[in-house]
This record gives sequence, C-alpha cells and structure tokens, in this order.
Amino acid sequence: MHRSRIAVVLLDHPAESYEAAAQFWAAAHGSPRGEKRPSDDSPYESLRDLPGGVELALQRTGPGSSPRVHLDIETDDVGAEIARLVALGAAVAEQRDGYAILTDPGGLVFCVVPVQTGADFEPHATTWP
Amino acid sequence: MHRSRIAVVLLDHPAESYEAAAQFWAAAHGSPRGEKRPSDDSPYESLRDLPGGVELALQRTGPGSSPRVHLDIETDDVGAEIARLVALGAAVAEQRDGYAILTDPGGLVFCVVPVQTGADFEPHATTWP
Repeated sequence: MHRSRIAVVLLDHPAESYEAAAQFWAAAHGSPRGEKRPSDDSPYESLRDLPGGVELALQRTGPGSSPRVHLDIETDDVGAEIARLVALGAAVAEQRDGYAILTDPGGLVFCVVPVQTGADFEPHATTWP
Repeated sequence: MHRSRIAVVLLDHPAESYEAAAQFWAAAHGSPRGEKRPSDDSPYESLRDLPGGVELALQRTGPGSSPRVHLDIETDDVGAEIARLVALGAAVAEQRDGYAILTDPGGLVFCVVPVQTGADFEPHATTWP
C-alpha cells in the first residue's frame, strides 16, 4: 500500500530563455522571486503554492531544449508508484537517484518523486492497494 | 481592477494517442472517465479536481501535434488580463471567441479564459490594480 498525488507543476525553459520566463511568471502571479535560483546542483526555482499546496515551479533545462510544462507526482514509495504507473502503460525514460522520468502512452514526460510538499501531502494523496 | 488565477492544467494529446493517454491518466489518478468525451464542438475532457479546485483536464489536439501540458489562467476580465500579461512580456498567439492563446517570453503556450471553476475562483484569485 502506498500513496501519491500531483505535487508540482513545473515550467521548463532552456538556459537562454530561462531568466525572461522566470521574470514573467513571477510577475504574472504576483510572486516576488526568492533568493534560490537554478544552480548547477539544482535546476529548480520555486514560484508559488497553488491552492491545496500544489507547487508551481520553474526548471532551467539544457540549452536548445524546448520550453514545456511537466507534472511531478509525489509518493511515499517511488518504486511502488513507478511499478503501478508502468503497469498502466507508462514507460520509464530515465531512472535518476531517488526519482524517475517517465512518459505516458502518448510520449508526454512526467516525473515520479519522493514527497515534496510536507504536510500538504497526506490530506491530498490517494492510497493505492 | 480584475482578478485571475491558474484554473486548469491541461494534458494535450493528438487524436492518434488521445484515447490511450486518457485511459492512462484516468487510471493513474483513480478517476473514472465521465460520459463527456472530446467532440468536434469541444475537444476537452475533465479528469479530476486537484486540491483548491484547480482542474486537471485533457484536450484532444490535431493529428500529428506534439503532446504537451498547458495552463489555463481564468479571469473575470479576459481583455484586462491579456493586456496585463502582454505588458509583462507575453504575446498573443491567437485571439479566439472569448479567450486567447498566448506565449510567454520563452515561447511556452498558455491560455487566458473566462472563469471556469465557479465558486473556487473567488477565494483563490489574485486582484490586480
């Protein structure tokens, strides 16, 4: 038995348009940017909590990559959640350290990650047998 | 003065992979599909309400289009919200009847639409001068 839910909506932009896009989305949502910006260690920047504690974040992706939006599904058991989703038709594109990049049956990219949202996880997650 | 907020996270799939993707995401979220499927009149299918009444939905897009995720920003004044976002750096890609398709400074597609979420709009929207 494990639990999961959609945790983060990520706006992915390549390095060359990242700053302009981050400035835009921060202003669009009236959320001043924090001090934490994408680095070589972590390409993520948190933007705003949506209602229910779903996080809106930015990711600086590789030069030349296409801008996109992707979803992070958070779970208290990454292995079990990946197995569940693969049985439903997803494919693992890349196993990373502690999380994985998957694609849905149409090739859409999403991630399965450990719990990110702390106290917001438990009340909003779904339990799977 | 007008108000806006992120209302819908849409998973867009072309006709050829739409059914497989829709089956997958419904099962992935444990949300049985409803009777309303994409039609020639409306290419949308509602999937699930995320916490705070942000809707997760599917869109059947044109044959050969790439799968993607896009955000809908809902507002009580579509014209004013578009003007605000364009002043921040967005561009209007296409003005439709009652809503518009925009791109952010990195070319990422999103939409500005009238209020979709009924009673969930007011408590979660931001007011702009």
